[in-house]
Amino acid sequence: MIKKYVFGRPVKTDAVVMEIPESKEELSVMELTESDGIRLCCRMEETDVVYGLGEQVRGMNKRGFSYVSHATDDPAHTEDKHSLYGAHNFLILHRRKQAEEENRSFGIFVDDPGRVVFDVGETKHDWLVIRAGSDCVIYVIDGDGPKDVVKQFRRLIGRSYIPPKWAFGYQQSRWGYCCEEDIRTVVREHHGQGVPLDAVYLDIDYMEDYKDFTVDEKKFPQFESFVGEMKEQDVHLVPIIDAGVKIEKDYPIYEEGVQKGYFCKDENGEDFVAAVWPGRVHFPDVLNAEARAWFGGKYKVLMDQGIDGFWNDMNEPAIFYSEKNLGKVMDEVIALKDENLDIHSFFHMKELVVGLSNNQEDYKSFYHNMDGVKVRHDKVHNLYGFNMTRAAAEAFDRIAPGKRTLLFSRSSYIGMHRYGGIWTGDNRSWWSHILLSLQQMPSLNMCGILYTGSDIGGFGNDTTEDLLLRWLEFAIFTPLMRNHSAIGTREQEVYQFEHIEDFRNIIRIRYGLLPYIYSEYMKAALKDEMYFRPLSFDYPEDAHAVQVEDQLMAGESLMIAPVYVQNAGGRYVYLPEDMLMVRLKSLGDRTSEVLTKGHHYVEIALNELVIFVKKNHVLPIAVLGDDMRTTADIADAEYEWIGFVEDAAEYLLYDDDGIAKNCNLEENCKKITVRREDLA
Amino acid sequence: MIKKYVFGRPVKTDAVVMEIPESKEELSVMELTESDGIRLCCRMEETDVVYGLGEQVRGMNKRGFSYVSHATDDPAHTEDKHSLYGAHNFLILHRRKQAEEENRSFGIFVDDPGRVVFDVGETKHDWLVIRAGSDCVIYVIDGDGPKDVVKQFRRLIGRSYIPPKWAFGYQQSRWGYCCEEDIRTVVREHHGQGVPLDAVYLDIDYMEDYKDFTVDEKKFPQFESFVGEMKEQDVHLVPIIDAGVKIEKDYPIYEEGVQKGYFCKDENGEDFVAAVWPGRVHFPDVLNAEARAWFGGKYKVLMDQGIDGFWNDMNEPAIFYSEKNLGKVMDEVIALKDENLDIHSFFHMKELVVGLSNNQEDYKSFYHNMDGVKVRHDKVHNLYGFNMTRAAAEAFDRIAPGKRTLLFSRSSYIGMHRYGGIWTGDNRSWWSHILLSLQQMPSLNMCGILYTGSDIGGFGNDTTEDLLLRWLEFAIFTPLMRNHSAIGTREQEVYQFEHIEDFRNIIRIRYGLLPYIYSEYMKAALKDEMYFRPLSFDYPEDAHAVQVEDQLMAGESLMIAPVYVQNAGGRYVYLPEDMLMVRLKSLGDRTSEVLTKGHHYVEIALNELVIFVKKNHVLPIAVLGDDMRTTADIADAEYEWIGFVEDAAEYLLYDDDGIAKNCNLEENCKKITVRREDLA
Repeated sequence: MIKKYVFGRPVKTDAVVMEIPESKEELSVMELTESDGIRLCCRMEETDVVYGLGEQVRGMNKRGFSYVSHATDDPAHTEDKHSLYGAHNFLILHRRKQAEEENRSFGIFVDDPGRVVFDVGETKHDWLVIRAGSDCVIYVIDGDGPKDVVKQFRRLIGRSYIPPKWAFGYQQSRWGYCCEEDIRTVVREHHGQGVPLDAVYLDIDYMEDYKDFTVDEKKFPQFESFVGEMKEQDVHLVPIIDAGVKIEKDYPIYEEGVQKGYFCKDENGEDFVAAVWPGRVHFPDVLNAEARAWFGGKYKVLMDQGIDGFWNDMNEPAIFYSEKNLGKVMDEVIALKDENLDIHSFFHMKELVVGLSNNQEDYKSFYHNMDGVKVRHDKVHNLYGFNMTRAAAEAFDRIAPGKRTLLFSRSSYIGMHRYGGIWTGDNRSWWSHILLSLQQMPSLNMCGILYTGSDIGGFGNDTTEDLLLRWLEFAIFTPLMRNHSAIGTREQEVYQFEHIEDFRNIIRIRYGLLPYIYSEYMKAALKDEMYFRPLSFDYPEDAHAVQVEDQLMAGESLMIAPVYVQNAGGRYVYLPEDMLMVRLKSLGDRTSEVLTKGHHYVEIALNELVIFVKKNHVLPIAVLGDDMRTTADIADAEYEWIGFVEDAAEYLLYDDDGIAKNCNLEENCKKITVRREDLA
Repeated sequence: MIKKYVFGRPVKTDAVVMEIPESKEELSVMELTESDGIRLCCRMEETDVVYGLGEQVRGMNKRGFSYVSHATDDPAHTEDKHSLYGAHNFLILHRRKQAEEENRSFGIFVDDPGRVVFDVGETKHDWLVIRAGSDCVIYVIDGDGPKDVVKQFRRLIGRSYIPPKWAFGYQQSRWGYCCEEDIRTVVREHHGQGVPLDAVYLDIDYMEDYKDFTVDEKKFPQFESFVGEMKEQDVHLVPIIDAGVKIEKDYPIYEEGVQKGYFCKDENGEDFVAAVWPGRVHFPDVLNAEARAWFGGKYKVLMDQGIDGFWNDMNEPAIFYSEKNLGKVMDEVIALKDENLDIHSFFHMKELVVGLSNNQEDYKSFYHNMDGVKVRHDKVHNLYGFNMTRAAAEAFDRIAPGKRTLLFSRSSYIGMHRYGGIWTGDNRSWWSHILLSLQQMPSLNMCGILYTGSDIGGFGNDTTEDLLLRWLEFAIFTPLMRNHSAIGTREQEVYQFEHIEDFRNIIRIRYGLLPYIYSEYMKAALKDEMYFRPLSFDYPEDAHAVQVEDQLMAGESLMIAPVYVQNAGGRYVYLPEDMLMVRLKSLGDRTSEVLTKGHHYVEIALNELVIFVKKNHVLPIAVLGDDMRTTADIADAEYEWIGFVEDAAEYLLYDDDGIAKNCNLEENCKKITVRREDLA
């Protein structure tokens, strides 16, 4: 049951797809106050758990911190950060049923694309307080526990994006691959050493002077034929697209955008000047339908050369500086010359310079034209990345109709999940970021974002061999499985390390699991369900399951419990029921044993994967040839089955051609009965 | 067995106190190469553990990262940081004995006060590589396991600093206490609400314009009588002293230092100009014996007003900027005005400004006069904090002979532990920093630093009630138990939160445990042992103990296993033998049960403390009156005993007047036999 409450005159965000009449009842699950915006609050009991909020730091249970929805380009995902790249204003207060008591869990979605604050017991340990703007729509979802609340919410916001099947393969990226030869090396080193690889990414280096929809001819003299050369090896190239359009005379996109008035304006109606990679840029006004169609149409330039996947970046939008503020700061700094800079003046100067980037005043100084209405950016800030990605997705429907194109974004807002996935941004080579990634996955799934994953090995800082290997052991379960790193950091393609066989084994296990991962992904997308779930979602009666913050249910048959602590030779695992523990040194080298419900310490060597199969569940494993290199090689692979079966278990196997857009459960699912004796 | 190897012409660091003849044998435990400095390397087996390195990030087992000894003022103690404030060039490679095999663990101390790199398997997973300068002394310690290696090393470097007993009480600090009234409030709120408190700290705010050894008369018009007013309540005031001396005409310390030539010089022999809090400063050349004596003597100004404790800060030394570099950077920034700043030029500008602070070139541009020899600072960088603290300690011996004065430092080098303790610097209100603090404690103890602790609740960022409470539940075991926070962050005195009774209960437990904590501290100091130990030090034969990174042995009777995960209602605990689990809601409200050797999940509510008593061990608990406010109130407290005893256990109880310097095991220890029936 979903109730809708409208406050003030909210902008149309297109977050939801379902028409719901405005509720005539009072908003009852939280106490509402209207003054200087909307304020909702309620007392939390000690055992209440709060889920949701999508891409944020800290645990799956969001209690004990406050989260601010304000899309932010911040490359230090530490515990104190209130905002990351996305704004996902959906949470669930989960109150476990006491005997005889009625269920009192609820979900709440605050459809306000400006700044929204969720104080989940930071200020006062027992109080949940939400503060939004005066103009917003609030949806309250009453459901039978968190799983049901999520399902209702997901119906409200529409079906999740489905990428092509090859996008479930292993992918390699690095800011710093500079030319054809760099990319050939990446493919050759992977495929040559028996490590499967489906895609290589082009970061900002491929462009001419960081101009969107250009290719630097010095680095890629024959781009189209190079794309073709890669395609012959079934390797896809995935270029980055940035939000800012370089200000440069005769650069057609710039000239057209200016001429047609498609860029965001400053307070005087001039094109707003910010700066990112190329220096000064304008931002296409993707909140305007016409401008959005125009910008989306530009992706065709690359698609015509064979490109079938993109990642949209810097679309919070990130701003290095605005022209106006830079001038001001420069003058202030110059005025300090020859002063005795003490604690106050020195830190003031430093803050001025550091504060040039993503400055809040800049976000208040430009405007969108939303269907004829001038809207100041900060009021709709969180819609930018959503609509840049929507621009692309809507264009793909015209440029490559009926076909899936890979698309994901850095910034997002509820609703963007219909158009593309996200990656979780500029993480670090930190062990704690394996855990953070694990914890973000179900929170994102709740918000409809299914195609997602973190930069494996860490984007910033130097990785180590053990970190990369442990990270992969988790990431073989994330739909987006991409190794990505920043320029200047240690090179972290798997072949840079000593024990290539360990990496080969782990990545091949991903491909072996693909029939399962793809089936589970498609069923989750088509049924508005979650691919990754906290244990408590599957075991709502289990009092300990809500405590488990470092294990996940992955699809219907599996529980995973990755090692995320350096030098650990194992870890504690909680089993909410008896499960089959399967230990894999490689896809073919596996042993298994039944572990009983309860707490266990499980030894897991650095080069081993351990997974847990639920009772009366099975999963298909593709039988891989030694020469398997990409998902294309396993299109017709045979399956074997592993499982934990008394007599027999049923599995709904989804498969399709991996490219056609009309995915359909009835047509593409086979119900397979696996008997005990069928197990490998 | 300790072997000493001398390379080149090392400076005299005074790190060690024992005369050891130069070894004539070859250095055999690691492979030595001399070219462009000293390089030592050896292969590590998969099960080898590396301990030591003092104040660094990551686990107690240092494998999988590289650590750089280079004292650094860095307030973001994230996993990627290679250097913190101290330089503790001692590590132990611990190779567990296989049956019949001889012990192959060893310790190594690289006595080089310049930059030393310990690559403990970062570059190559299985290789330990140490790189030092050409002029250094290396000590190799061969011992019977890590505990023995530590004991030998500690004898080599001399007895650890012993603070006055009141310094084991609870202490409150905040950058931002601005005047007498602020401090009165702190004391009144604690004592008035039954929360014991022994000391309040004075951060940089108390000084006049951040000038060392001055007191701002506007804030503290009657400083001496205010110190006395606090003393009447048995509350000690602990002022901060910074390394930089303000350049200001007629400021006596500045004038004297210039006149006598006691400041560090630049390449032209002029007093080197850096900047910290007051803006431009000179650094007293504490590496020069005369200057050291002069600077130390200045502490008398405050001691004469009743002060009996100090903390030395910014003595890496931290540099906001050097005058010379600031001018250069300013010119570069000004030249960029009106340019189109793109990825290269914009980040270059940002780096210039951010890079003003603690700039490596600055450290190469000033000089010490070490007994007549001019030494460039970077060659001896890590000795600065050590010698600033030594300056104070040597002066205390003259100013207040025979008495203990509280003293700790931010920066340190091996050897400084004889003169004072350290706090672990500017941590954050992060849950991960409870664990970091726990992991740093034994590593610091190995290096002789016993009087230490972290800023409870976190220095940077906003704390929360649950974080502060969980942090205290660990910190009641650290010798230095201080709540400290930065200006601008949430106020985090325990009375700022809702459930003051929880804080009162936990802090009173500390005072109840004081007879034990003090005894164990004193025995560790006087016997060159560790107060905090990794489990593997006490249970060398236990194959799992070396894996345990989040529990500690604290003194001879206890194992602790604090909760450091937000919203966790308990945690896993490994028991290397049967132990008595004691659960305390308050000092008086305790229950206990015996848990068997092995893995356990233990529920621990937010306001509970759980400790584990070793078999046939006891600990004394002081019986506290309700009106107990400071350590002075429990000088004559009666004890009761808790323990895990079959028939009887012996305990060596150390006690003294808490202030006299000549601490002595024979005189001050009582051997007490506690029978089962004596237990409370």
